[in-house]
Amino acid sequence: MLKNELTELLQIEYPIIQAPMAGGVTTTELVSEVSNSGGLGMIGAGYMTPEQTRKQIKEIKQLTSRPFGVNLFVPEEFSVSQDEIIAAKKVLKPIREELNVTPGHNPEIPEYQHYVETFNKLIQVIVEEKIPVCSFTFGIPSAEVIRELKANHMVLIGTATTVREAMEIEKSGMDAIVVQGTEAGGHRGNFLTGDRESLIGLMSLIPQVVDQVRIPVISAGGIMDGRGLMASLCLGAKGVQMGTAFLTCLESGAHELHKEGILNAQEDQLVLTNSFSGKWARGIKNRFIEEMDKSNVSFPEFPVQNALTQPIRKASSSQNNRDFMSLWSGQSPRLANRQTAKALIEKVISDAKMISINI
Amino acid sequence: MLKNELTELLQIEYPIIQAPMAGGVTTTELVSEVSNSGGLGMIGAGYMTPEQTRKQIKEIKQLTSRPFGVNLFVPEEFSVSQDEIIAAKKVLKPIREELNVTPGHNPEIPEYQHYVETFNKLIQVIVEEKIPVCSFTFGIPSAEVIRELKANHMVLIGTATTVREAMEIEKSGMDAIVVQGTEAGGHRGNFLTGDRESLIGLMSLIPQVVDQVRIPVISAGGIMDGRGLMASLCLGAKGVQMGTAFLTCLESGAHELHKEGILNAQEDQLVLTNSFSGKWARGIKNRFIEEMDKSNVSFPEFPVQNALTQPIRKASSSQNNRDFMSLWSGQSPRLANRQTAKALIEKVISDAKMISINI
Repeated sequence: MLKNELTELLQIEYPIIQAPMAGGVTTTELVSEVSNSGGLGMIGAGYMTPEQTRKQIKEIKQLTSRPFGVNLFVPEEFSVSQDEIIAAKKVLKPIREELNVTPGHNPEIPEYQHYVETFNKLIQVIVEEKIPVCSFTFGIPSAEVIRELKANHMVLIGTATTVREAMEIEKSGMDAIVVQGTEAGGHRGNFLTGDRESLIGLMSLIPQVVDQVRIPVISAGGIMDGRGLMASLCLGAKGVQMGTAFLTCLESGAHELHKEGILNAQEDQLVLTNSFSGKWARGIKNRFIEEMDKSNVSFPEFPVQNALTQPIRKASSSQNNRDFMSLWSGQSPRLANRQTAKALIEKVISDAKMISINI
Repeated sequence: MLKNELTELLQIEYPIIQAPMAGGVTTTELVSEVSNSGGLGMIGAGYMTPEQTRKQIKEIKQLTSRPFGVNLFVPEEFSVSQDEIIAAKKVLKPIREELNVTPGHNPEIPEYQHYVETFNKLIQVIVEEKIPVCSFTFGIPSAEVIRELKANHMVLIGTATTVREAMEIEKSGMDAIVVQGTEAGGHRGNFLTGDRESLIGLMSLIPQVVDQVRIPVISAGGIMDGRGLMASLCLGAKGVQMGTAFLTCLESGAHELHKEGILNAQEDQLVLTNSFSGKWARGIKNRFIEEMDKSNVSFPEFPVQNALTQPIRKASSSQNNRDFMSLWSGQSPRLANRQTAKALIEKVISDAKMISINI
């Protein structure tokens, strides 16, 4: 059992956090099994309603008495141009037709205020449910929210892609930082640094961050096994957050085609795209990404584009067609396995223990 | 003293290779000092003539009896379109004027055959000079060349950015592979994989490569200290190749403004550009990169664009103006120091020895 600042802070056995993947991946079974196995299970509540979140929290409490956490998306202001929406709808139209998405089924264009209200309700849910750990993506919540959560003895974790973002998170009073390398699958968490400038490999990012902050750093991106855990600890991180490795686990709620896609992918098939949601994210190249690349359209910002493509992703998924699904994955798909979350955690730890470097 | 397959193969004390940076960085003093300090010094002969290369080899032999190596660029066929050349010249013209580059000073547009002949002469030089180690960038030389070098007991090292490229290098009969992560400064070494698909972080790339090849893997990109060396070894590499860390050393021939630029840079100021040479490379964002980005021009391929911008880079450098120089750097500039190569190597090793992870 490794004891360090992070395992003490989170009250867990192993410095392994299951990444809070949104969109149905983090089932009750996955989250509770990770926590029961000595890691930290996390609910990816980014797209969930307060009611769904409360329901899942209650279910998980039935299955584990160990700590688990919730991740929330910090609402960002966005501006919507009607021209961009029209252009995006135009390139999506033939795909809607191909998938027989009913023309009446028009996605609602969300308003910023709606996201803020949902976020505030989610904060109340996690306070009322006494969740011990809350992590944030896409920014830093307001000082009031941080104060309230800390008054409730919650451990707060921010997500950074650069040294500057990490320093801002520390300054805000949070307790730990997930440092997301360019290797990571799914959405990029940059919120101060530009999209192009924030794509930094963990080999560079971790040591530069740990030299500038005092709170524990958690390494995230492409880490799948004991080698990645040990390398992260050598670079100065106190633990790892693993997404793709848990996504292909038996308990994960990812679509079977998504799991299969990762298990058969190679590292050079993972690309960055903003075509699914309006925000850059890494996934397996498929027909949707290729066609959107060719269209040369400038997509509406997150979460508007996300709302526009939602019916397509849903239809593609329910029709068992991987062409138009968002197949998020980090850059290490060759290291993915189909196994239980418990087996994954045990393997990471036992492999890490076997590594011994004499220099 | 670490003994492993790589140190045995290269007959060196420490698993540290000084990256063969082209363009005058790898002075006789730098290469010999690295080798004398227990690492492997490398001449970056990519842009050198056979005569210059022979002269430097003879100078280095005066200063060290330890092994050192030479790196060569494998010539790649390229196609030149007059339209692209005209467009590139047009956007370069105001910069030439600002720098007072004489209008008569027109760069020669090189021919592929010229590069092949130079390459073959360089091969003869290293055979005649009995160089123990030769590494290659931008591809794999012909089977005849590999046969000839191996018949002369030379250790051959290829450069890969993906698993597929690493497997091809092993198949060609080479003895080791430098695996270049997206973190790396200077030119990207991809030769089979697309530019976009080959940007893989070392945390992902190293374990996926070592699982597929048997020859030793050398980790390259953003590694500057003992943490990076230990992390690379944990991931399965047998050693590291460091570029930026040696570039700011006292013995390096890099321009003072280049060294200063790195010493004052942050990790989010390093961007990829193909505007200097026609090939993608990572460097500090400056006026040249910004203006070329804005121009939206599709530049001629390497080495044509390289020839077109050469007078500008030269004038910018001799006028002590960093605006139009290629300030190559990896993604870890915050870890750079001004020191001797010997001090750097000793620090990397002593820091690595201090790292002890109990899990």
